[in-house]
Amino acid sequence: MKHAQPIPCDLLIVNGKVLTLDSQDRRIRQGAVAVSDGVILDVGDTADLLARTRPHKVLDAEGCVVLPGLVNAHTHAAMTLFRGLADDLPLMDWLQHHIFPAEKKLTEDWVYWGTLLACAEMILSGTTCFCDMYLFEHKVAQAADEAGMRALVGEVLYDFPSPHYGPLENGLRFTQDLIAEWKDHPLVRIAVEPHAPYTCSPDLIRACFHMAESHGVPMVIHLSENQAEVEEILRRYGKRPVAHLAELGVLSDRVIADHCVAVDEDDMDLLARHGVHVVHNPESNLKLTSGIAPVPALLERGVNVALGTDGCASNNNLDLLAEMDVCAKIHKAAAQDPTVLDARTVLNMATACGARALGFGDGLGRIQAGAPADLIVVDFRKPHLTPVYDPVSHLVYAAQASDVRHSVIAGRVVMEDRQLLTLDVERICAHVRTIAEKVR
Amino acid sequence: MKHAQPIPCDLLIVNGKVLTLDSQDRRIRQGAVAVSDGVILDVGDTADLLARTRPHKVLDAEGCVVLPGLVNAHTHAAMTLFRGLADDLPLMDWLQHHIFPAEKKLTEDWVYWGTLLACAEMILSGTTCFCDMYLFEHKVAQAADEAGMRALVGEVLYDFPSPHYGPLENGLRFTQDLIAEWKDHPLVRIAVEPHAPYTCSPDLIRACFHMAESHGVPMVIHLSENQAEVEEILRRYGKRPVAHLAELGVLSDRVIADHCVAVDEDDMDLLARHGVHVVHNPESNLKLTSGIAPVPALLERGVNVALGTDGCASNNNLDLLAEMDVCAKIHKAAAQDPTVLDARTVLNMATACGARALGFGDGLGRIQAGAPADLIVVDFRKPHLTPVYDPVSHLVYAAQASDVRHSVIAGRVVMEDRQLLTLDVERICAHVRTIAEKVR
Ligand SMILES: [Zn+2]
Ligand SMILES: [Zn+2]
Repeated sequence: MKHAQPIPCDLLIVNGKVLTLDSQDRRIRQGAVAVSDGVILDVGDTADLLARTRPHKVLDAEGCVVLPGLVNAHTHAAMTLFRGLADDLPLMDWLQHHIFPAEKKLTEDWVYWGTLLACAEMILSGTTCFCDMYLFEHKVAQAADEAGMRALVGEVLYDFPSPHYGPLENGLRFTQDLIAEWKDHPLVRIAVEPHAPYTCSPDLIRACFHMAESHGVPMVIHLSENQAEVEEILRRYGKRPVAHLAELGVLSDRVIADHCVAVDEDDMDLLARHGVHVVHNPESNLKLTSGIAPVPALLERGVNVALGTDGCASNNNLDLLAEMDVCAKIHKAAAQDPTVLDARTVLNMATACGARALGFGDGLGRIQAGAPADLIVVDFRKPHLTPVYDPVSHLVYAAQASDVRHSVIAGRVVMEDRQLLTLDVERICAHVRTIAEKVR
Repeated sequence: MKHAQPIPCDLLIVNGKVLTLDSQDRRIRQGAVAVSDGVILDVGDTADLLARTRPHKVLDAEGCVVLPGLVNAHTHAAMTLFRGLADDLPLMDWLQHHIFPAEKKLTEDWVYWGTLLACAEMILSGTTCFCDMYLFEHKVAQAADEAGMRALVGEVLYDFPSPHYGPLENGLRFTQDLIAEWKDHPLVRIAVEPHAPYTCSPDLIRACFHMAESHGVPMVIHLSENQAEVEEILRRYGKRPVAHLAELGVLSDRVIADHCVAVDEDDMDLLARHGVHVVHNPESNLKLTSGIAPVPALLERGVNVALGTDGCASNNNLDLLAEMDVCAKIHKAAAQDPTVLDARTVLNMATACGARALGFGDGLGRIQAGAPADLIVVDFRKPHLTPVYDPVSHLVYAAQASDVRHSVIAGRVVMEDRQLLTLDVERICAHVRTIAEKVR
């Protein structure tokens, strides 16, 4: 091979410590990743790849760790608009006197700008892919597309009229149109998203599931977020929320269930048996006093558990590095076992498990030839990341959003040296500030 | 006053939103803070203070929030050396096979460099004052002095021989010498620091308390960190740890008790009655599975509760902004009440309560004339801090270490535009990396 012609490639990331997170958990010290046509072409030693490729662009990762981009598997991106609007209030007071009135004013313009802001924050903190549920989701899709982010988005559906589409029938039609419109987009996909068992009739949930099945797309639903929901669904249907959905015949591996905090053994068995993907949102669950989801028990049953931040009104950021830290810690305390949810497991939740939950094909969440090229480069040349015994420990327990240096999504560099290349941050922030004046 | 001569001052911070955190919780929109001789001279409107003062140096705070520096009320600074050395292990395995063997190699040189690294990280994340317990504390005092940080430091004392001073008598003498040596230092003070009730005999704890009393300095002790400690002390002395110290006559308002996780109603009453200061370390308590300290119940009893990170081996960072976030959230879940530990209360724990616990005189932790000039300027012109409805909410729930722009300690600018002015970060990191090779 010595005299072979160098292979042209779009991008070569060099000199980084590469954490492949692949099945052998390979780590390459002076590693390089070659990318072409949105896909990882090769992974290996820097000197070797420099010799074997002719890259159009080179990204330096000296002193940095290269890993798959993080997947925020549950959020309401445009709720950046309401970040810190109200906190530390009883749940009903918070919803009825602050969040709902603010959401009544929502326009597609607001959702567009709020989502752009969320995309900026997510890219700046290492997230390359997200799953969204909100109103005016055509604007969320548009914003994600402009940001160059990978996203699974869907309009929230419930029994009552929506501030966006009005009566429910319109919502189902709107979702169908969205699916058609974004069918061939390389990065943005559509899901069918009934809000929750307590806001959606059995008929609606069934209709959603059938639409998801017939189009081959995921269904996203909030499920068993807290004990109050369990009691309400028990009262209405004589079953707990998970069993209720099982009875409706809508549990399968195309279902992404957000939260699953208040689940018992039978619920967990059902989730496992049907291959439902669960998204864990520990910070939001703590802040809204929902509790701590039994993640270790879910993992033991083989349930695929991803990680999400939920919306900014209940977090109040979209920082998955911080979320990993909290996730790894609270479960140790809850289980009274420090070996529970070790750093590697939690990093997996925030990468490959998220990719799998969202249905983004094989390989996403791993650095290996043929996988989609969603990569981040985290700068370890920082006092709080010194010394380094184990980079995975640092990523989960010590790294900060601002340590993320470069970000690549589907082979496109969306952030280089902390500069966003797809978004005009100052313009977005300025616009959101004018919206906030109307929210207040 | 119109024609009065402008008053000379060392430093004027201008154009910031000033959160005084004073008794009226005054907030000044286009605010300024004038500083002279290490003390706050005046707080007010920027235009007004620009007219009335003649500053030697001006720090810009446009788009930023100015607040008192954060106080890390419990850490083992030099444990930065062991950050990420071992995680997710059973407690005894972690201590006996990883931490203790590493600590056996400790030298005063290691502690010096590890503490310098900790000071860099702390200043970079908004901390201006810390309380330390470790070995070779003369080097911790030296490092804090060189960093320009305010600190309360003390050599850890226990019944068995120390890798630093050898037999216990030497430790008591060493502490006495430290007190004498640092007596007149403006920023660095010494405490007497028996490790914990399970590692210190009643005689040692009493001797420490008497030394603290006779020199008028604080006593720092780990107390009731977990249920295992409670059971051990019950077995040995027939009393729970707090009651045991009460019986020894060593509870008073000069005592700083770290953790207090496993405390019952009687313990909390004792802590309150004797005016003991409690330091809460939520992240370390979660990670080491100690549990969640009953902070709301302590606060209800009027106990002064400060915030700490504990050492980097059990956190794994010294980031008080992240600690505030976790603190505010876990207590909501634990109490099943979202109104518990609101953002303002938690910010108070990380500022004025910490200052009060450490005995750093009146006014520290507030921006008011006459108070020590320990101030930080946090840059809010960031996507994740946009929009702003309530800056206190953002500081607790959304801000990141890297948002801290300037830092002033006792009137001296120790960080300007993220550049450390007292420490050579690259040199420190390089030196710590060589130490880490010997640790491994
Ligand atoms: Zn949600
Ligand atoms: Zn400690």
